[in-house]
Amino acid sequence: MSAAKVGVVGLGAMGRGMAASLRRAGHEMHVCDARPEAVREFVAEGGTGHGSPAALARECGVVISVVVNAEQTEQVLFGPEGAAAAMQPGSVFVMCSTVDPKWSMALEARLESMGLLYLDAPISGGAARAAAGQITMMTAGQAAAYDKCGAVLESMSAKVYRLGAKAGPGSTVKIVNQLLAGVHIAAAAEAMALGIRAGVDPDRLYEVITHSAGNSWMFENRMPHVLAGDYTPLSAVDIFVKDLGIVLDTARASKFPLPLASTAHQMYMQASSAGFGREDDAAVIKIFPGIELPAKEG
Amino acid sequence: MSAAKVGVVGLGAMGRGMAASLRRAGHEMHVCDARPEAVREFVAEGGTGHGSPAALARECGVVISVVVNAEQTEQVLFGPEGAAAAMQPGSVFVMCSTVDPKWSMALEARLESMGLLYLDAPISGGAARAAAGQITMMTAGQAAAYDKCGAVLESMSAKVYRLGAKAGPGSTVKIVNQLLAGVHIAAAAEAMALGIRAGVDPDRLYEVITHSAGNSWMFENRMPHVLAGDYTPLSAVDIFVKDLGIVLDTARASKFPLPLASTAHQMYMQASSAGFGREDDAAVIKIFPGIELPAKEG
Repeated sequence: MSAAKVGVVGLGAMGRGMAASLRRAGHEMHVCDARPEAVREFVAEGGTGHGSPAALARECGVVISVVVNAEQTEQVLFGPEGAAAAMQPGSVFVMCSTVDPKWSMALEARLESMGLLYLDAPISGGAARAAAGQITMMTAGQAAAYDKCGAVLESMSAKVYRLGAKAGPGSTVKIVNQLLAGVHIAAAAEAMALGIRAGVDPDRLYEVITHSAGNSWMFENRMPHVLAGDYTPLSAVDIFVKDLGIVLDTARASKFPLPLASTAHQMYMQASSAGFGREDDAAVIKIFPGIELPAKEG
Repeated sequence: MSAAKVGVVGLGAMGRGMAASLRRAGHEMHVCDARPEAVREFVAEGGTGHGSPAALARECGVVISVVVNAEQTEQVLFGPEGAAAAMQPGSVFVMCSTVDPKWSMALEARLESMGLLYLDAPISGGAARAAAGQITMMTAGQAAAYDKCGAVLESMSAKVYRLGAKAGPGSTVKIVNQLLAGVHIAAAAEAMALGIRAGVDPDRLYEVITHSAGNSWMFENRMPHVLAGDYTPLSAVDIFVKDLGIVLDTARASKFPLPLASTAHQMYMQASSAGFGREDDAAVIKIFPGIELPAKEG
C-alpha cells in the first residue's frame, strides 16, 4: 500500500488515537476539530491542521469522520464550511459514529448523488485500542469505497468487518453491540450492588464472577472502576443515555420491543438526572440505594 | 490425600458428571437418585447405589447434594429416609443447589445442632465441565467442614472459591452470578432478535459481537443454539424462571430493587407461558415477534 492523504475530522478520545495510528502507519495526515487546541496538539507531532472540514476535504481522498452523532456528522458534511461540497469526485467519506442505520443508508445516497463514495463504518474498542491501532470496525459499503480506503482502515484496526455491499449493516451491528454493551454495564452495576447489599466483599465477588458464566466483557472492564471508587469518565453515563436512545429509536421505527434495553436506558437516565451524567458509565451503580460503595483511595 | 467414601445425591446433568469425576479421582463412590435407572447407569461403571439418602448417608463421611432447589434439599435431608438423621457425627453435608443465602445460613445452624458439618457450596460451569472435573465452586463454611471435604471438592473442580468462614457468601455469589447469567442470555436474545429484524446475517452478527465489547460468556455460549435452530435443553428456560425468581425473592427480602433481573424474569416467564419452558434457555428469543429465526438443518 502506498501512503495516502487521509483526513480525520474529530479529535476526541477515539479520533485522536485513530489519527495517530494512521500517522504511525505512514499516511500524510490532515486533521480538523472544533477545539483548536486539539488540532495544535496533534500537529505538534506531525501532520497538517485545518480550520474547517471544507479546507481538510480539499486535500484528502479519504475523509474519516469521528464525531459524536448523526447531527454532528451532518454539520461536518453540510454545515458552514462543510466537507461534502469540497471533496473531490471519487473521494470517500468514512462515517464512524453510532447512528440510526436508516440515516446512514440515506447518507450514502445523498453523497452518491454528489459523485462521492461512502462507507458506513462505526467503530468499537475504546480509546486505548484506538491509540494502539487496534480498533474493530463494523463496515458496509460499495466495492469502490473499499478500493479507495480499505487499506487505510486496515492500517489503524485490529479487524475491519465487511458486512455488506451497501450502507446499513455496519450501523445495525454497531447498534446491536451498543444494546449489549449498555445492558451489560447496567447489569454489572445491578449485580455488584446486590452483592454489596448482601455483605459480600466486592473484590472477591469480582474475582469469582470474572471466572464464571456470569462474566461479560463489560463486567470485567468496568467493575474495576467501582472497586477503585474512581469514576473518572473513560466513557460517560451520558454516552449510553445517547446510544441506548438511538438503539430504542431504531427499534421503535419498526415497532420492535426491547425490554432490557429500555430498562437499562431508564437506569442511565436516572443516573444522569441524579447528577452523574458526566461520570464514568460505571457510575450507573450510584442509582442503587442503601449500599456503601468502595471509596477512592488517597 | 487418601481416598474417601463420598456420596452424591442427585444424578442430573451436573451431579452425574461430578460423581464420575470423583470416581476417576479414586474415591469410593456412593450414589442415590429418585430415578433408579440413573443409579443403575452410574453403578454399571463402578460405585455403590442406594435406595435412599439415609442408606447412602450411613456409609459416607462426605455427602454432596446436587438437587434442583431448597425444597428438594429439604427432602434429601429431612424427608422420609432423609440423610440428616443417618449421617455420622462430624460428617459433612455439601449443599450445591442455587438457594436463598438466608436459607443456607439457617441450614448450617440446623445441622450443627445435630453434630453435623455443612458447606454452602453452589456450583457453576455446566454439564460438560462437570463431566471433565472442571466446575467452579462458590463455597463458604467452617474450617472443620473444609478439613473434612476440601480435598474431595478440589478433585472434581477447576476452582473452589472459599468465600467465608460461615455459610451464606457462597450462595450469595451464586445468586449474583445467576442474575448476570439470566440477564445476559435474555439480552443476547434481544440483541440477536433486533439484528435479525434489521436484516443482518445472524452468523456474521455472532462473529462480530463475540469479538467486540458487547460480548458475554452467555452470548458466546448460547447464541450458537439459535444459529443452529437447536433448542435441545442443555439448561431449560424454566431453570431461569426458577433461578431469577430466587434472585428476586432474595433481594425483595431486603427491599432491594433489581430492574434488569425483574425484566429478564418476565421474559423467561413469557417464554414459559408460550410453551417453551422445557426448551433450551436460548429459546427465550422466541418471545420476539415478527422475525424469522434460523431453522434446524436436516
